[in-house]
Amino acid sequence: MEQRVRVLIDCEDAKGLVYKISKVFYDRDLNIDNNREFVDKEQGKFFMRTVVSGTFDTEELTNALKEVAPSTANLQVIEPKRKKIVILATKESHALGDILIRHEAGELDADIEAVIANHDILETLVRRFDIPFFKVSAEGMSREEHEELVMRLIDEQEFDYIVLAKYMRILTPNFVSSYAKKIINIHHSFLPAFIGANPYKQAHERGVKIIGATAHFVTNDLDEGPIIAQDVIPVNHRFEWRDMQRAGRDVEKIVLSRALNIVLNDRVFVHGNKTIVF
Amino acid sequence: MEQRVRVLIDCEDAKGLVYKISKVFYDRDLNIDNNREFVDKEQGKFFMRTVVSGTFDTEELTNALKEVAPSTANLQVIEPKRKKIVILATKESHALGDILIRHEAGELDADIEAVIANHDILETLVRRFDIPFFKVSAEGMSREEHEELVMRLIDEQEFDYIVLAKYMRILTPNFVSSYAKKIINIHHSFLPAFIGANPYKQAHERGVKIIGATAHFVTNDLDEGPIIAQDVIPVNHRFEWRDMQRAGRDVEKIVLSRALNIVLNDRVFVHGNKTIVF
Amino acid sequence: MEQRVRVLIDCEDAKGLVYKISKVFYDRDLNIDNNREFVDKEQGKFFMRTVVSGTFDTEELTNALKEVAPSTANLQVIEPKRKKIVILATKESHALGDILIRHEAGELDADIEAVIANHDILETLVRRFDIPFFKVSAEGMSREEHEELVMRLIDEQEFDYIVLAKYMRILTPNFVSSYAKKIINIHHSFLPAFIGANPYKQAHERGVKIIGATAHFVTNDLDEGPIIAQDVIPVNHRFEWRDMQRAGRDVEKIVLSRALNIVLNDRVFVHGNKTIVF
Amino acid sequence: MEQRVRVLIDCEDAKGLVYKISKVFYDRDLNIDNNREFVDKEQGKFFMRTVVSGTFDTEELTNALKEVAPSTANLQVIEPKRKKIVILATKESHALGDILIRHEAGELDADIEAVIANHDILETLVRRFDIPFFKVSAEGMSREEHEELVMRLIDEQEFDYIVLAKYMRILTPNFVSSYAKKIINIHHSFLPAFIGANPYKQAHERGVKIIGATAHFVTNDLDEGPIIAQDVIPVNHRFEWRDMQRAGRDVEKIVLSRALNIVLNDRVFVHGNKTIVF
Repeated sequence: MEQRVRVLIDCEDAKGLVYKISKVFYDRDLNIDNNREFVDKEQGKFFMRTVVSGTFDTEELTNALKEVAPSTANLQVIEPKRKKIVILATKESHALGDILIRHEAGELDADIEAVIANHDILETLVRRFDIPFFKVSAEGMSREEHEELVMRLIDEQEFDYIVLAKYMRILTPNFVSSYAKKIINIHHSFLPAFIGANPYKQAHERGVKIIGATAHFVTNDLDEGPIIAQDVIPVNHRFEWRDMQRAGRDVEKIVLSRALNIVLNDRVFVHGNKTIVF
Repeated sequence: MEQRVRVLIDCEDAKGLVYKISKVFYDRDLNIDNNREFVDKEQGKFFMRTVVSGTFDTEELTNALKEVAPSTANLQVIEPKRKKIVILATKESHALGDILIRHEAGELDADIEAVIANHDILETLVRRFDIPFFKVSAEGMSREEHEELVMRLIDEQEFDYIVLAKYMRILTPNFVSSYAKKIINIHHSFLPAFIGANPYKQAHERGVKIIGATAHFVTNDLDEGPIIAQDVIPVNHRFEWRDMQRAGRDVEKIVLSRALNIVLNDRVFVHGNKTIVF
Repeated sequence: MEQRVRVLIDCEDAKGLVYKISKVFYDRDLNIDNNREFVDKEQGKFFMRTVVSGTFDTEELTNALKEVAPSTANLQVIEPKRKKIVILATKESHALGDILIRHEAGELDADIEAVIANHDILETLVRRFDIPFFKVSAEGMSREEHEELVMRLIDEQEFDYIVLAKYMRILTPNFVSSYAKKIINIHHSFLPAFIGANPYKQAHERGVKIIGATAHFVTNDLDEGPIIAQDVIPVNHRFEWRDMQRAGRDVEKIVLSRALNIVLNDRVFVHGNKTIVF
Repeated sequence: MEQRVRVLIDCEDAKGLVYKISKVFYDRDLNIDNNREFVDKEQGKFFMRTVVSGTFDTEELTNALKEVAPSTANLQVIEPKRKKIVILATKESHALGDILIRHEAGELDADIEAVIANHDILETLVRRFDIPFFKVSAEGMSREEHEELVMRLIDEQEFDYIVLAKYMRILTPNFVSSYAKKIINIHHSFLPAFIGANPYKQAHERGVKIIGATAHFVTNDLDEGPIIAQDVIPVNHRFEWRDMQRAGRDVEKIVLSRALNIVLNDRVFVHGNKTIVF
């Protein structure tokens, strides 16, 4: 069958990997539509993402690749179909709204299965786009109780990734490990960094001249997972902290959408606490 | 005498400040060549920098301004003459070299009185520009002993500012307080921040996508004084940590020179731990 | 009556302007909440934007200011109320969508009176936000005929500004002069520039490494009016021209919204073919 | 002999290229230290840059690669030795100075054979670094006569590249074609672009908010050759045109040095009027 797949391989580096893998493609007369490799010399790790097209059987191709790759290799042969996402939000609409508009324009390679929020402020906006909205209030509950409800809702959806579009709740290790490498978050970033409540206010008090945003996979280190995308904008002393926050929102939404585009196109490898973005 | 001065005033905000100050200028028939004000509403602080020209007596003008400004105001009436700087360095030449080239081109509004380093690697470079170079080795000395020698050398120079052009020694509170608001430093900056040895290596291991630099006045909080200028550049997973360091050098030198230009033109107010840059 | 106004003055530069204007405020015991001035030395032009609050009569204040300002001065005393905008669009939703989301979030200091488009592709999106949508097809019409219909529709609205959110029609001098200084446009920008059809394709063929966007007031020089805001993002040889277009959309929408925010807050002076943005 | 080479191949795209080329490396038991490929789908062109190390004979390797590559392929097997450059300049020192400092620091992978200028202003600076300086005045000469003298001087040097570090003379087609793909230039860039004399002044009059610089190979289209690197910085209405020029110098020098680093490491393919930068 004429088809196209994305082949992602990461493994210990070894001599001849490119040769052996490209031989598999060559022997099957496949077209290489896109090919990127990277070797992390320090760690001795090999990363390769190839888009191949032609007439082939996916299972047979996968098996052939398995035979030439080291036994410990992570091998993915992915058919480029639309993915599904669940979005978690709280009150702010900028990141969520940006995703909704892209979705509506057909620019997001994903279906939004549901938006789940711990407040109902965003309900009107989400419903305008005919997307299911669920409010799960955290009031009067322990963190664990609330998360259990959210997880139950998430698990009822079919999804590939969970997007935290300014979801202002701290996640428990249980939540994070349940969806390892599947949760994408956006958070403000500053030079230097500010920890704790109201970071824009802290950054303002410190007189920073640049503010930024980081999109990353969520791990148990709060706001510290593998970075997918980052960007910044300049500010100055005339910015009150609310102006900084407003400016920050623009960076946050663009960086989150950029990261989402990378993830949905299977263009990112996570390796320890860092990423390889092709 | 026909002349031009920079008037810098910062004080508690009060009604009529602009009126009263501009009246002083108007009554003396002065030209306002440049004028910037800023009110920090939260802190209730007023900042004003005005360049005036005309025929006037500086002392008389200063006294007139003192009369209309609140008694607690900081008032500076500065004749725009070339300032003098002393540069401290260690082994790296990028920040120092950038200043030397600007100095040679007549673009730096300052004379370089001396370069003091704790190694002799930069001696050849500095001597090429016929600028006095002093090596003060720190070997076999306590931090205090070494600093005493450096301070003795500094104090022999005539200078307005001390520029740390990648001076890789930690300064004692004694050093810092001896030259309060007179020391300008440049340091790398990352999103997020990294503390400790070899930050470029740490940033590399973390897979940051942006690296930057911050120029600031030095206070006793290590690398934490009022920020004068910042900038960043994008990096990616293909950058080994030495590539990041190399890229970082470009940002460091440009940001330091930009900050120096701001300081030498009396365009910065320090207010607590932040700056107003006009 | 306790109130707050924005005072905008631009005129020939003259001695004592700041003094005389601030005296008007001081004599009425007004608070200066924000104040910015700029003198274009080459052109001998003075620009001032001051936000004052207190108890005063707007007409009396305006007359007092008129008396001290040169007779040729442009003087505006603006009560900071929500403005009204009409949006013109064609098929692309990114710039329009960004404005709609900000409007919904209460972040846009304007009401959207209507969206007018020459196609109906965007109708669904606009109606989701309960905003009037009008399609004015240009099919089978001369440029003048079509514009007349559009202008009739525009003139039925109450509006302060017309926003071209990727409106892909060339405007006639008649249209432009009918709404002088009231039309804001966004267009792609490249280094170097490309003229004619499909500029992203041209930029791609030229291998540019940076693409950008410019928001400007519309004058009869196509895409050449006074610039309000600009920004850029890096691209590389891996970007096909459609990727460039996609990346360009992000810059376009952010820059347009930034410009709109500046305009809606009366923070921009147009002076010949350039702007002063406070 | 244990050695390392850079292999650069560009040719018509064809099935199996990666396989066949990597087989050549694999058969000789070589290490792939770095490998990047790119296929320009529209043009049907294949680009590959591989750094291989091991024990091999360069001629034998080259022949083996020739056998597997299409007959029309451009094949380079480059030993990574220091290259040699000749710099042309006029009066401005920023771009030249930046290269001199990097050279002195051992950061430039090239020896500077000579600096040739049509004025003697830069002589002192160049001589400080013990680098040969030649003044070739253009006074009283035709463009062709002057160029002939310059070319004679250039041809007396051993060099790989000619770097125009703000050389303010227009080159004749004869000059350009004599050193095809060997001349690197830096020029200012604006959004939109400005042609003719004193572009910074034009950009200032237009009120641009961003200025930039482009480093490119020189072709007969003035300032229009294949782009190697670009960057920008923000400016505003407070910048007089000389401030813009000053700010522009920082971008120019950084972008030129960045481009030079790319070229000296054989990381750029020229393809028609664009580049592939690995």
